[in-house]
Amino acid sequence: MTKMPMPSAAAPDTKIYERRESAVRTYSRSMPRQFGKAQGVWMHDNAGGRYLDFLSGCSSLNYGHNHPVLKAALVDYIAGDGVTHALDLHTDAKTEFLRTFEDVVLEPRGLDYRMMFTGPTGTNAVEAAIKLARKVTGREMVVAFTNGFHGMTLGALACTGNAGKRGGAGVPLNHVSHEPFDGYYGEGVDTADLLEQRLSDPSSGLDAPAAFLVETVQGEGGLNAASPGWLRKIAALARKHGALLIVDDIQAGCGRTGGFFSFEGMGFTPDIVTLAKSLSGMGLPFALTLIRPDLDIWAPGEHNGTFRGNNHAFVTATAALREFWADSAFADDVARRGGILEGRLERMADRHGLSTRGRGMMRGIDVGSGEIAARITGACFDAGLIIETSGAHDEIVKVLAPLVIDDATLNAGLDILETALAEAIAPVKRPLGVAA
Amino acid sequence: MTKMPMPSAAAPDTKIYERRESAVRTYSRSMPRQFGKAQGVWMHDNAGGRYLDFLSGCSSLNYGHNHPVLKAALVDYIAGDGVTHALDLHTDAKTEFLRTFEDVVLEPRGLDYRMMFTGPTGTNAVEAAIKLARKVTGREMVVAFTNGFHGMTLGALACTGNAGKRGGAGVPLNHVSHEPFDGYYGEGVDTADLLEQRLSDPSSGLDAPAAFLVETVQGEGGLNAASPGWLRKIAALARKHGALLIVDDIQAGCGRTGGFFSFEGMGFTPDIVTLAKSLSGMGLPFALTLIRPDLDIWAPGEHNGTFRGNNHAFVTATAALREFWADSAFADDVARRGGILEGRLERMADRHGLSTRGRGMMRGIDVGSGEIAARITGACFDAGLIIETSGAHDEIVKVLAPLVIDDATLNAGLDILETALAEAIAPVKRPLGVAA
Amino acid sequence: MTKMPMPSAAAPDTKIYERRESAVRTYSRSMPRQFGKAQGVWMHDNAGGRYLDFLSGCSSLNYGHNHPVLKAALVDYIAGDGVTHALDLHTDAKTEFLRTFEDVVLEPRGLDYRMMFTGPTGTNAVEAAIKLARKVTGREMVVAFTNGFHGMTLGALACTGNAGKRGGAGVPLNHVSHEPFDGYYGEGVDTADLLEQRLSDPSSGLDAPAAFLVETVQGEGGLNAASPGWLRKIAALARKHGALLIVDDIQAGCGRTGGFFSFEGMGFTPDIVTLAKSLSGMGLPFALTLIRPDLDIWAPGEHNGTFRGNNHAFVTATAALREFWADSAFADDVARRGGILEGRLERMADRHGLSTRGRGMMRGIDVGSGEIAARITGACFDAGLIIETSGAHDEIVKVLAPLVIDDATLNAGLDILETALAEAIAPVKRPLGVAA
Amino acid sequence: MTKMPMPSAAAPDTKIYERRESAVRTYSRSMPRQFGKAQGVWMHDNAGGRYLDFLSGCSSLNYGHNHPVLKAALVDYIAGDGVTHALDLHTDAKTEFLRTFEDVVLEPRGLDYRMMFTGPTGTNAVEAAIKLARKVTGREMVVAFTNGFHGMTLGALACTGNAGKRGGAGVPLNHVSHEPFDGYYGEGVDTADLLEQRLSDPSSGLDAPAAFLVETVQGEGGLNAASPGWLRKIAALARKHGALLIVDDIQAGCGRTGGFFSFEGMGFTPDIVTLAKSLSGMGLPFALTLIRPDLDIWAPGEHNGTFRGNNHAFVTATAALREFWADSAFADDVARRGGILEGRLERMADRHGLSTRGRGMMRGIDVGSGEIAARITGACFDAGLIIETSGAHDEIVKVLAPLVIDDATLNAGLDILETALAEAIAPVKRPLGVAA
Repeated sequence: MTKMPMPSAAAPDTKIYERRESAVRTYSRSMPRQFGKAQGVWMHDNAGGRYLDFLSGCSSLNYGHNHPVLKAALVDYIAGDGVTHALDLHTDAKTEFLRTFEDVVLEPRGLDYRMMFTGPTGTNAVEAAIKLARKVTGREMVVAFTNGFHGMTLGALACTGNAGKRGGAGVPLNHVSHEPFDGYYGEGVDTADLLEQRLSDPSSGLDAPAAFLVETVQGEGGLNAASPGWLRKIAALARKHGALLIVDDIQAGCGRTGGFFSFEGMGFTPDIVTLAKSLSGMGLPFALTLIRPDLDIWAPGEHNGTFRGNNHAFVTATAALREFWADSAFADDVARRGGILEGRLERMADRHGLSTRGRGMMRGIDVGSGEIAARITGACFDAGLIIETSGAHDEIVKVLAPLVIDDATLNAGLDILETALAEAIAPVKRPLGVAA
Repeated sequence: MTKMPMPSAAAPDTKIYERRESAVRTYSRSMPRQFGKAQGVWMHDNAGGRYLDFLSGCSSLNYGHNHPVLKAALVDYIAGDGVTHALDLHTDAKTEFLRTFEDVVLEPRGLDYRMMFTGPTGTNAVEAAIKLARKVTGREMVVAFTNGFHGMTLGALACTGNAGKRGGAGVPLNHVSHEPFDGYYGEGVDTADLLEQRLSDPSSGLDAPAAFLVETVQGEGGLNAASPGWLRKIAALARKHGALLIVDDIQAGCGRTGGFFSFEGMGFTPDIVTLAKSLSGMGLPFALTLIRPDLDIWAPGEHNGTFRGNNHAFVTATAALREFWADSAFADDVARRGGILEGRLERMADRHGLSTRGRGMMRGIDVGSGEIAARITGACFDAGLIIETSGAHDEIVKVLAPLVIDDATLNAGLDILETALAEAIAPVKRPLGVAA
Repeated sequence: MTKMPMPSAAAPDTKIYERRESAVRTYSRSMPRQFGKAQGVWMHDNAGGRYLDFLSGCSSLNYGHNHPVLKAALVDYIAGDGVTHALDLHTDAKTEFLRTFEDVVLEPRGLDYRMMFTGPTGTNAVEAAIKLARKVTGREMVVAFTNGFHGMTLGALACTGNAGKRGGAGVPLNHVSHEPFDGYYGEGVDTADLLEQRLSDPSSGLDAPAAFLVETVQGEGGLNAASPGWLRKIAALARKHGALLIVDDIQAGCGRTGGFFSFEGMGFTPDIVTLAKSLSGMGLPFALTLIRPDLDIWAPGEHNGTFRGNNHAFVTATAALREFWADSAFADDVARRGGILEGRLERMADRHGLSTRGRGMMRGIDVGSGEIAARITGACFDAGLIIETSGAHDEIVKVLAPLVIDDATLNAGLDILETALAEAIAPVKRPLGVAA
Repeated sequence: MTKMPMPSAAAPDTKIYERRESAVRTYSRSMPRQFGKAQGVWMHDNAGGRYLDFLSGCSSLNYGHNHPVLKAALVDYIAGDGVTHALDLHTDAKTEFLRTFEDVVLEPRGLDYRMMFTGPTGTNAVEAAIKLARKVTGREMVVAFTNGFHGMTLGALACTGNAGKRGGAGVPLNHVSHEPFDGYYGEGVDTADLLEQRLSDPSSGLDAPAAFLVETVQGEGGLNAASPGWLRKIAALARKHGALLIVDDIQAGCGRTGGFFSFEGMGFTPDIVTLAKSLSGMGLPFALTLIRPDLDIWAPGEHNGTFRGNNHAFVTATAALREFWADSAFADDVARRGGILEGRLERMADRHGLSTRGRGMMRGIDVGSGEIAARITGACFDAGLIIETSGAHDEIVKVLAPLVIDDATLNAGLDILETALAEAIAPVKRPLGVAA
């Protein structure tokens, strides 16, 4: 039976953070603990507290913290003086990663991509993708979507919808048109059709696009899941209008929604795919831009970066691919467990007249306001559950449990959420005149 | 006595790279080996070859490969299930880093900065710096300098001078004015004075700047070292015109030019400093933007990134600070060894009528053309020395040896360079009519 | 009874045009005559041909060519050495214009605007309007609409939808979002509601707008007439989101759709209005930006132009205001005649299964393709009728007859159109197998 | 003998201006009179005052006000119902202008240009020029120069140096690099050489330019006259770097500096030339972009404008070309009179230790500050002389007398200036302790 979390009672001394860390820090404000160790689905703070992690580094820890197989591979590598940093020189670790990715990921899926190792952050993979799309097409404008999130550097930030993040740019963010995502205008309005009308109208003012940049499930934007049909339409639109289709699979890929890629089995193939977050498997910085071979027209070094090709990440990523993706067992188990998650969230939502969002193990519940959501996640944290929100108004409580979680622990965590949700929602629903 | 390198005779099988790695790869083209292990100043390939590393990950490995103290700290941390990834939550490793950076770096130098942990790449640290400068000042335009190199994401790329890199953007790069660096127009022309004239002229067309972004020694741009006097003028100009002074110390900092910061003892204090490359000490992805506390007006999460705060890097960076920067011994030794390097390069240059560039252990020799430079670095590689070029035309052969190199090995490496240089230059100098 | 036009049989010698006028010339290609004199609704070529003008300088000649009252006023002024050019110095002619515009236009309509005399082109009036909106709000983004047309200089061109015109810019056109105009997505979709959803969503990626720039009837974009209800919603949206409402009344104003302003009686008041085209009454270059007094925060000379305040145009514009707008007779007559036009176009459309567009005396018929439309206008020209097309595909044959045309001549011109339409449409409708 | 001006004693009633004209008005603030008639070099106000015009509509009235020959041609044309407005249809007036421009201007000078009739403002002619240069070269960046002035619409404004004007844009002004004009850094620094160094350096950050946009004498920027040698260097630079050379001759052309074009006899031929201001001869709105025939790659209508091809202006411009440019007599006389102006200004400058600027009949005197300059022009106005300032600080008192002025009247006006200058400068020079 799952042992429940044992959170700490009080916050640690954080003076050094107040004195020396920038005001830009964020998660530590709502989760004021100091963590030391982490294993599997658990994080431990320095006051003896233990927390169940339903945030997973925003889906960067799909295989949990310090997975023993990955950890062992990395320790061995370091102990043996394996190359840590080598710019983009060939290394044993890189060779193994390339071969394993080809064998385990590309070939079984009939996919043909070249791998570009960008700087090891998702935003860098996105910047490389849109640069290449612009270079290939000779066009500037990229179509991104409402509530999309693609990163914080200027090129990727221009593709990001969030006004608060955009406002940090300090310069106008251009060369991007933010079009309504699937379902944005409610049922009965096919936003792909609306987009097609404007793209086909030479007087619409919408310039010919270099690329469509899309998440199949919008992680930061509120767990909005695009339907396969809509995504196929977007893929067809891209092809029709001479634009590239870039799937940003940084959060939804690596098994979070089931398959290694979130778009598997949907009947279309992106021209470019970006990966990061859980790619290294252990939370190490690592990012990858997959490119259809005939589009790989980069000049040598045209996009580079000191930390491209993080060899520690090659080692853990290779181990993770072999451990989890050599056959379909893991994906099947994720699909099954996603069903459990879906069922429980649906029941919670039904009970309170709310709605759910998402797909696979990337799901959440729309609680109506960021204020209520914050009350829920706060109560969860007090009960030992790390869980966060997303959406335009932070109104979606999202469950990003490690994919390796066992069913009992998943349910135990969801029990905490269920209680917190009921307590946060209930008072709101009480009829007037009844004391709280 | 230093053992000479023993390079491999033949290139390894690279089919997997040709098939699966993007054409953007670069260093592996001129150094076609597959490396496996690396220790201190040496890299080992998978055919038994050994190479002396005068590239040091473009100054990301100032303490050499897999330094035993750093390695031990990291292995212990991983073995003990230390938190690997925690977004920007407080962790033991982060606390230790903050405290150590304060104790070892800031306080002894009388500096007062807040630390912003950006995505772990230099370009991300630069993007954060210019965003903040624009936010603080309400202005858009950033003054960067000829031959400056600041990164590949759109905001940082706009500040980068290199036309090849800029051309990869696919959109016009705006909001930046590239002004002549110190010495750009030769002796007798003070480019700071030229800039001041335009900044003070309301009809010059040069908009009021948000920031000056400057490297004290331009790593990629050709090892051009700005004089302290010029830098003080630029600092004064920034203050006078209401702009922030950002020193990009990503390549020149962390001891490369002597002190921990490249601007130490120069009589001015930047408003913002960016660090990356050797900051983790072991080549792990890590970047930092230092901010004058009163300028730290970020809203929580206004700039973020999944891999901000790489805990492995906190561990090795803390160990490196304690190992190398607790007193002045290391800096003194670097200064002394920089003198050896300077002396030998000067002699080589004199012999061939060439000139040298740089400062501290960040020096090079201008061989007049990229073609000659490539011949030299190719001959060095064949002799077991990894060395690269920089500059607008790749005409500067640059020595970026690990700072921990012993004098004998440094000299052995320079012997190889000296021979290669003599052989590459000599034929060119032969009088007409004499057979080659 | 109206005398029918007597067009010339052959094109004149145009060698000087081919040799010396830029290839950018356009109308002269489809109407290859050389015109000399023009009076009222008639233009005369240099071969004795006479043409009925249903183009009216794209609505710049609402009162016809060389209206005798205006002409007399201008000749008197010139003969008396009235000031022709005086930059923006006060002149008798300007004083009279200001007073007359206040008396005849503003006060009777209860409108309170300041007049800004920009450079005497519509595009300049639009540039001034959007500059001011950006200055007032401190925001960059302007909402313009699909099929909108606002001018050819960079700021106005960015607000223009036409891809061919936009492509001439040579730089990306930014800081503008082109939103669907009223009816763009067909009946049942209220595009103002779609826009409101994105403006109210902090994660939509649509930045807060400085202004909404809208034509009530889109002249170049295909004579799409916005409904008063939709325009009121847009006006409310602007107010709600802190943006200014700019009505570009350059083509639809000055009586073309009935009232002096096209938005009269619609239940909203723009913050800024642009006027040009028929403002001078005689086709002289003249433009005006009307500004709500509290928004008139220009610094002296912040926007200027050598030919701002064309004194000849002051004279003719004053005469036109007095002649046509001193009471409601002219507007009433235009409304009545617009009814005639509407009736005849509707009947033509019905006969061929086509649809009409527009409002007042600014109406057209959608003939389905630019090719058919060109056949129609070509046949009209051969029959002595000058008429042109508009719309994304030039598929709208538009009637922009002088407002002063008498009913018989209007009908005579429409007879020509009716015949040309029937001949152009008919063959298309013939069943297969029947010879043309 | 020249009769001296008789200015009015008091300002007129300007309530209508305060109530109804935008705060953007400027000249009327320092010259608070209401003008009615104007003839030759004289302007008359509505209180019987007479003013000698040394401003000439900022060089838009090179042939004086209402020149009798031009006036007669225009009155005849209007009286005979000549076409006023015809978009870009062929007209008799246009044919005459094209032929006359070819005969009188192009052929005698061996120049081969196509004429593009843009919207009738200088800024529109400049927008067309830079659009075409970007289209021809496929590049975005235009090199403009410090203190350059090219117009107020966004594209031209980006090329303008003045910070106050630029600030009105409300968006960042991009795609232009403002380089130091001839002499900007003082004697001994050749700014063309500085520019060449950066253009030839692939790492300078200066993108490859589409065009160089230059005035030979900077009208608004302070009457800085570029030397023929520097201009030839710029022309050579443009050719070498694949950029077009655009001479903005809007203020310096049409005889102001001697020849019809300001660059005549300098040994280079621009690719594109912009003309406006005095082109119509009578102050009517008119602009022209001259294009080297092989660069005339415009698609029909790609740049257009309602008032392109102002037929009244064709009439007066044709008359002016015939009257003044059929032989060299006028140019010779301007050259001679420019010598008189130069001599007198030099003597004034010498007397007060000041310096002069300019060329031909486009000259001024640098009085050191805008405050002193305003005192001088104010005193002149009180004495019946209209004269204005230019320069970054409005510190240049500029003489832009009509070119047709007779020597005696020129001298009479300069007498007024001389007196005002002496009175404004003298007190400043008085030793301390001496009462004013």
